[in-house]
Amino acid sequence: MKRIAVYTSGGDAPGMNACIRAVVRGAIYHGVEVFGIRHGYNGMINGEIIPMNSHSVSNTIQKGGTVLKSARSKAFMTPEGRKKAFEQLQSHGIEGLVAIGGDGTFTGAMIFHNEYGIPTVGAPGTIDNDLFGTDYTIGFDTAVNTALNAIDKIRDTADSHDRVFFIEVMGRDSGYIAIQSGIGGGAELVMVPETATSIEDVIDILNQGWKRFKTSSIVVVAEGEELGGAQTISDMVKGQLPEMDIRVTTLGHIQRGGAPSAFDRILASRLGLGALEGLLNGEKNVMAGIINDQLVYTSFYDTINKVKPINPDLIKMVNILSV
Amino acid sequence: MKRIAVYTSGGDAPGMNACIRAVVRGAIYHGVEVFGIRHGYNGMINGEIIPMNSHSVSNTIQKGGTVLKSARSKAFMTPEGRKKAFEQLQSHGIEGLVAIGGDGTFTGAMIFHNEYGIPTVGAPGTIDNDLFGTDYTIGFDTAVNTALNAIDKIRDTADSHDRVFFIEVMGRDSGYIAIQSGIGGGAELVMVPETATSIEDVIDILNQGWKRFKTSSIVVVAEGEELGGAQTISDMVKGQLPEMDIRVTTLGHIQRGGAPSAFDRILASRLGLGALEGLLNGEKNVMAGIINDQLVYTSFYDTINKVKPINPDLIKMVNILSV
Amino acid sequence: MKRIAVYTSGGDAPGMNACIRAVVRGAIYHGVEVFGIRHGYNGMINGEIIPMNSHSVSNTIQKGGTVLKSARSKAFMTPEGRKKAFEQLQSHGIEGLVAIGGDGTFTGAMIFHNEYGIPTVGAPGTIDNDLFGTDYTIGFDTAVNTALNAIDKIRDTADSHDRVFFIEVMGRDSGYIAIQSGIGGGAELVMVPETATSIEDVIDILNQGWKRFKTSSIVVVAEGEELGGAQTISDMVKGQLPEMDIRVTTLGHIQRGGAPSAFDRILASRLGLGALEGLLNGEKNVMAGIINDQLVYTSFYDTINKVKPINPDLIKMVNILSV
Amino acid sequence: MKRIAVYTSGGDAPGMNACIRAVVRGAIYHGVEVFGIRHGYNGMINGEIIPMNSHSVSNTIQKGGTVLKSARSKAFMTPEGRKKAFEQLQSHGIEGLVAIGGDGTFTGAMIFHNEYGIPTVGAPGTIDNDLFGTDYTIGFDTAVNTALNAIDKIRDTADSHDRVFFIEVMGRDSGYIAIQSGIGGGAELVMVPETATSIEDVIDILNQGWKRFKTSSIVVVAEGEELGGAQTISDMVKGQLPEMDIRVTTLGHIQRGGAPSAFDRILASRLGLGALEGLLNGEKNVMAGIINDQLVYTSFYDTINKVKPINPDLIKMVNILSV
Repeated sequence: MKRIAVYTSGGDAPGMNACIRAVVRGAIYHGVEVFGIRHGYNGMINGEIIPMNSHSVSNTIQKGGTVLKSARSKAFMTPEGRKKAFEQLQSHGIEGLVAIGGDGTFTGAMIFHNEYGIPTVGAPGTIDNDLFGTDYTIGFDTAVNTALNAIDKIRDTADSHDRVFFIEVMGRDSGYIAIQSGIGGGAELVMVPETATSIEDVIDILNQGWKRFKTSSIVVVAEGEELGGAQTISDMVKGQLPEMDIRVTTLGHIQRGGAPSAFDRILASRLGLGALEGLLNGEKNVMAGIINDQLVYTSFYDTINKVKPINPDLIKMVNILSV
Repeated sequence: MKRIAVYTSGGDAPGMNACIRAVVRGAIYHGVEVFGIRHGYNGMINGEIIPMNSHSVSNTIQKGGTVLKSARSKAFMTPEGRKKAFEQLQSHGIEGLVAIGGDGTFTGAMIFHNEYGIPTVGAPGTIDNDLFGTDYTIGFDTAVNTALNAIDKIRDTADSHDRVFFIEVMGRDSGYIAIQSGIGGGAELVMVPETATSIEDVIDILNQGWKRFKTSSIVVVAEGEELGGAQTISDMVKGQLPEMDIRVTTLGHIQRGGAPSAFDRILASRLGLGALEGLLNGEKNVMAGIINDQLVYTSFYDTINKVKPINPDLIKMVNILSV
Repeated sequence: MKRIAVYTSGGDAPGMNACIRAVVRGAIYHGVEVFGIRHGYNGMINGEIIPMNSHSVSNTIQKGGTVLKSARSKAFMTPEGRKKAFEQLQSHGIEGLVAIGGDGTFTGAMIFHNEYGIPTVGAPGTIDNDLFGTDYTIGFDTAVNTALNAIDKIRDTADSHDRVFFIEVMGRDSGYIAIQSGIGGGAELVMVPETATSIEDVIDILNQGWKRFKTSSIVVVAEGEELGGAQTISDMVKGQLPEMDIRVTTLGHIQRGGAPSAFDRILASRLGLGALEGLLNGEKNVMAGIINDQLVYTSFYDTINKVKPINPDLIKMVNILSV
Repeated sequence: MKRIAVYTSGGDAPGMNACIRAVVRGAIYHGVEVFGIRHGYNGMINGEIIPMNSHSVSNTIQKGGTVLKSARSKAFMTPEGRKKAFEQLQSHGIEGLVAIGGDGTFTGAMIFHNEYGIPTVGAPGTIDNDLFGTDYTIGFDTAVNTALNAIDKIRDTADSHDRVFFIEVMGRDSGYIAIQSGIGGGAELVMVPETATSIEDVIDILNQGWKRFKTSSIVVVAEGEELGGAQTISDMVKGQLPEMDIRVTTLGHIQRGGAPSAFDRILASRLGLGALEGLLNGEKNVMAGIINDQLVYTSFYDTINKVKPINPDLIKMVNILSV
């Protein structure tokens, strides 16, 4: 393999630039030419394919977002779109791809490979951490710390005013960010899609805290929680806890950005290099991951279809630590 | 004056603890006994009045919120409430008060003084910066930096996806946080209650940016903007800018908390000491402020009734800097 | 076991408070009385042993340092000192101990157990991460992020002035902080005690960067590096690289403090709870650790005497990523 | 004036990029062509003069350092060097200059103007804040906050171990950073070049704290303190305070870098625009400054030769607040 390309797709995540950098410098180290595709699959179709060298990624490891930009591509979901993409890659002499992204990114890559046979290796880049085949995804640790810093700030106000706060964090299908930021933030309760919590439970836990003279409480809610978001749940409990001053805040998009944490920069560097070296060694249709500190490759199919459960110890721990 | 008390009231603001600390240590330095009243006027009524010494405020200068806690008191709005408060102060031998808070706090203090004659000097503690009689209020600089850090993070995502973001910051009656965080964040447009912006203006400015190949834009909206909040405004423009990917985020309560900035710690220390020394020197019914780096005292009446305008140079500057 | 005590000893590390909190609340959850011993072994000897309840650890999870304070105790190294410590524990009815600290802490605990038979379980609290029996120690992730943020800041100046910076980070016997902050900071070279680097290598690598038009370079040096600290090494190379503007900075004590990261708060909570539950289940003379996301107990003897090597992939990666 | 250029010179300071951006976009707004000179006076001599447009400064407002790079130029101190610089400017058609820097930068600009008559307006960019003609310089607020965050972290360790820390901050001729970070960090003592402190005073203050059961103390020392740096002073007192555990740390280069604070971004934007508009309005040989929130121009001569004293209230306040 003499020439490869790298792209980012789907939602941006802190550490994607560290991953791009590792792919680019790894390729140079191994004597392979490397191109960057801008705007994900859209750029692949439109030919936004540019040569990269060591300087292209200088001073990017500390930056949030993705210097290659990202996009969600409707065109790539059509056979015509993928045909154009293939022609663009051919005309640039690209023989292999490194795809940085999540579920949707890898689904596209798998279909594309089946049709045109271009080998692709993925690197897991999503703040949600809900990808099977790796203990952690790029951006998760930074997103948790961003959520945690926000919870720390809100705790100042909750304590000063003896309030209860419902705080909604990201995680449409997964409670990873909620559980980690909740434990880290000393939350009294964490509500995640993976486990059922009834409104009665919420009221009970808040009442128990009150009886133990806790004058402020934090409930962290994953956006994908079955009962609804933080606002909905707070509306349900307010009537039954009239003596409590209850507030709601939704952290929103700040969770996606910011300079990546040390953990994410190192993880992203390892996964970028791992994806690249896998590609050069003949891997295809797989995602590079790190499980128990070892580099592993998992088929796109499993990555997309299998579920990575939350460690049940963590869910149990919230309960113990808020006594 | 041999014994005084200090309290915080209204919304909490970063730096209130630095201000309490300056009052307490200043009192000790000047040989005056000092008490803390917890939960603002509610605690004054209920007798939550505790002696404080140098250690009471050790290791608090860096903390957000208020260690004396704050509350909004309905009881203090009644003559009966204020009578009880006065009796509590008398029974504790309190001869003067330092009140840390905003408009509502000082209105209460003014009425209370008119009825019972206890001298009170205020220190301006509110993130909104909308108090006449001081260039800056305690907590404002920290809130602006918190909003700015959030905007920096959102800019990462806006750039990565070529998006337009409407970001709502705090400021019900005032655009101070919006204008400063907007300039600092490199916003294309800042919408504040103090000036009228039409929906046509918003659309024009976003279109102009697009024509100059700006691929992302940030609009900062103060919550008190006349056209409505960020969500409302975004809904109005979306239909007319169909090619743009427009998102909305509301920063919310994170703007109130967090470790105070250096600016706020120093300002709060100066104002706390200034309020205390004013009280000891016979001032009453006034708020301590700093104007042009000089300590000044402004009557509660003026503080509450006069308006401090935003520097028009700042509003003009947003326009110039986003060309 | 009806009554236990917890203490911190040796150098403080961010996350120790989260660990204390988990021990205290875990004990309450399991119906066991819990005391805190202040100032480590010194306080054990002097009887600084205080009852703790749920409120004792409220609002501490986000704090750096240790609320129980720490100390290095010469008295505990003597038989007389340990005899007094035992008598104090007896008089307070303490039946088991949780010790949070590092090598020295566990050595003391092991000797003490051999003499007096009080069961002790350890939790690894040290920023250096050099303890056998756990993948990560409490405080390491925070220290790495602190070092990384400092490197990011210094990179701004290095780039602005086309300079080479030698940055010394903590790690007397171990290069963990150096290797992680170096990779995260995009360092051109990382020098650690675990591998030999010659002065010729240093000069070669800096010269190669120069030839590829890198105008600034960062070399991260662990304080325990065999060739000497950052200042010594920089002095050795300066004469041979006269065209380079070389500077030195030593990060120092800032690496020990600060609010713990999410990773450290969760790790500390798990290890505190793990140590406590081990103690209640009959473990003794062991340290709780987490290896491959599983709670494990390793004998103090092995913890103290075995060496945990740095992942060689990380050392190799620095070289690849700086091409 | 149809074409101007901007450059940064001397030590880098956070906010310089925000200032460059304001000059560039201000020039575009006013219909003037704008060039950037890289590497300060060296680049002026070597012809590193590049056209800039609105995109040249996109996404730079939040970056530390200077995108135009800086340097100290020996060549510009010679008549030959300045002759070459003038020829380069002429050949590029540059009719006026905005110089961002400090004392040395403006001295060079003044001499250059006297010889060749090219009008130059300065903007004060230095973390030291020791320039006459402006209340604050670009970078000062960020440097103070960086120092303060470091002091907060060190306080965690000081408290955990009952230690005294001597912390050295930047400021060769001026105690601005020391006094502000010292007040903000709750230091027991601040030692600055502007006032004399004897070793006996240091010992007295530490002893007094000890008697009041302060178990930890922070002394902030400006690097230009007459008695010597933090290490020297600590060595002098150690012998006389044998019961105290005294440590020293020097914050070093981290104080120069990092994302600028809100205050610095706004100040830099105002000063950049102010310098540009002054230049276009016929000002020359002056520095733009902001005094009492008003834009003012002060001659380079006064800026260089007059001294801006520290507010004596601040020095007195340290003493009061550490009782």
